[in-house]
Amino acid sequence: MAKPTISNARIAPTIPTTVIDHNGETQQVEIAGEHALGLYVDKHELITLMTLGQMPEALAAGWLLSQRLIRDVNELEEIQVDWEAGAVAVYTKNGIAPVLDERRTVTSGCGQGTMFSRLMEEIETVEFCRQPLFSAAALLHLLQLIRQQETIYKRAGAVHSCALVAHDGHHAELLCFVEDIGRHNAADAIAGWMQLNEISGDGKVFYTTGRLTSEMVIKCAQMRIPYLVSRSGTTAMGHQVANAVGLTMLGRAISQRYLIFSGAKHFNR
Amino acid sequence: MAKPTISNARIAPTIPTTVIDHNGETQQVEIAGEHALGLYVDKHELITLMTLGQMPEALAAGWLLSQRLIRDVNELEEIQVDWEAGAVAVYTKNGIAPVLDERRTVTSGCGQGTMFSRLMEEIETVEFCRQPLFSAAALLHLLQLIRQQETIYKRAGAVHSCALVAHDGHHAELLCFVEDIGRHNAADAIAGWMQLNEISGDGKVFYTTGRLTSEMVIKCAQMRIPYLVSRSGTTAMGHQVANAVGLTMLGRAISQRYLIFSGAKHFNR
Repeated sequence: MAKPTISNARIAPTIPTTVIDHNGETQQVEIAGEHALGLYVDKHELITLMTLGQMPEALAAGWLLSQRLIRDVNELEEIQVDWEAGAVAVYTKNGIAPVLDERRTVTSGCGQGTMFSRLMEEIETVEFCRQPLFSAAALLHLLQLIRQQETIYKRAGAVHSCALVAHDGHHAELLCFVEDIGRHNAADAIAGWMQLNEISGDGKVFYTTGRLTSEMVIKCAQMRIPYLVSRSGTTAMGHQVANAVGLTMLGRAISQRYLIFSGAKHFNR
Repeated sequence: MAKPTISNARIAPTIPTTVIDHNGETQQVEIAGEHALGLYVDKHELITLMTLGQMPEALAAGWLLSQRLIRDVNELEEIQVDWEAGAVAVYTKNGIAPVLDERRTVTSGCGQGTMFSRLMEEIETVEFCRQPLFSAAALLHLLQLIRQQETIYKRAGAVHSCALVAHDGHHAELLCFVEDIGRHNAADAIAGWMQLNEISGDGKVFYTTGRLTSEMVIKCAQMRIPYLVSRSGTTAMGHQVANAVGLTMLGRAISQRYLIFSGAKHFNR
């Protein structure tokens, strides 16, 4: 199927703001942008996403994928973002009939709402390709690249980042790096970007600054990415899902340190 | 109206887990619990909340409040949590007829989905009681209390905390401190706790470790709490909402430092 036509819209990530600090002095700081983006599929409004707006087309595609409203971005004809209207218009090739019913059971960020059992059934059958084997050397290189990245977080805070990472068992490469005001938006944008750019999860690493709750682990498995790395920790259910599906999951990964939570046998120390 | 009958269920907050650290050594760590809690209102299943499970009754009540499915917890007859069934059964006194329609437009965490404009209309009319005036002295005392708190975060990470704080302009007191795997759950639990314990937002402070996105600022205003303090930063829309409704909002509040983002005139330096 032909790829969708997509716009390439983005919006200023930070806004200069005057604040008063603890010494009573006026400071100029940058704060992260937050924009309402109404998502319309074939002219039906589905949801309003609040986003930093750096990869809005990939976010829209990734949200539809993570909600299982589409299975493949090539089901879409067009993704057009209009910041003045605060909307992203998505047109499908053949409609997505169940949308209006599915709308009742959309999953959401921060653990509020899931379709947990249905998703678990689906990801338990995922076969991961773990070649090349991820390694301590490639992980430390990844963490170095993340530290060196020029980020909106360094300028304004209040955002999470996710990255899709390739590696050869020794070195790492950031294929896609995205920041957003929620870790779920950032993860969804990576999922959309991968399909729009025809990049598979085989042998890749998913990096996030966010906590590894069950929903984040499920999203990683949905992308068929065998390795999941976070600067933060995990929850018991995130851990359980990673074990159940056979993900290699590392947390508390900062500088030279990390903990292997799951799947140590597929990680080359 | 009579207060609802509620259970007092909680569940172990952390789970001991064996991990392998960066030196290849086995470590015993604690990870945060994450539990699926199906929310049933008058036997209709509405949503599954993923939670740390420390204040599940208050979370259920607060979620119904923040979604505007109820206006007052006294509309409820009973809130019963059953961890074995993974469910919280809520019974209303007179039903909440619009629930099944409203369900389509529930707001959600992490900026994914909002009823932004409708909520803004509602909170723009909120009148805050700002007595006693919040002050630098009371803020520094609050930050000291937060540092001294025995937290699940210190043991396991991967959680956010929120607190409802009283103060007399000099000293602070933590009336309610709750941690959960998402900042929205923690905020909703505070909202539920306040109504269940008949504590108003007048003159209070809402403290959170989470980012001040528009949804968090809206929730604070819905609780009629005039002062909002975060360890993290804000987004442009969070800032805009705080200015629009007249909240005093402080961010980057750690130890002796903070930034006043909004409403400095109601803060006594």
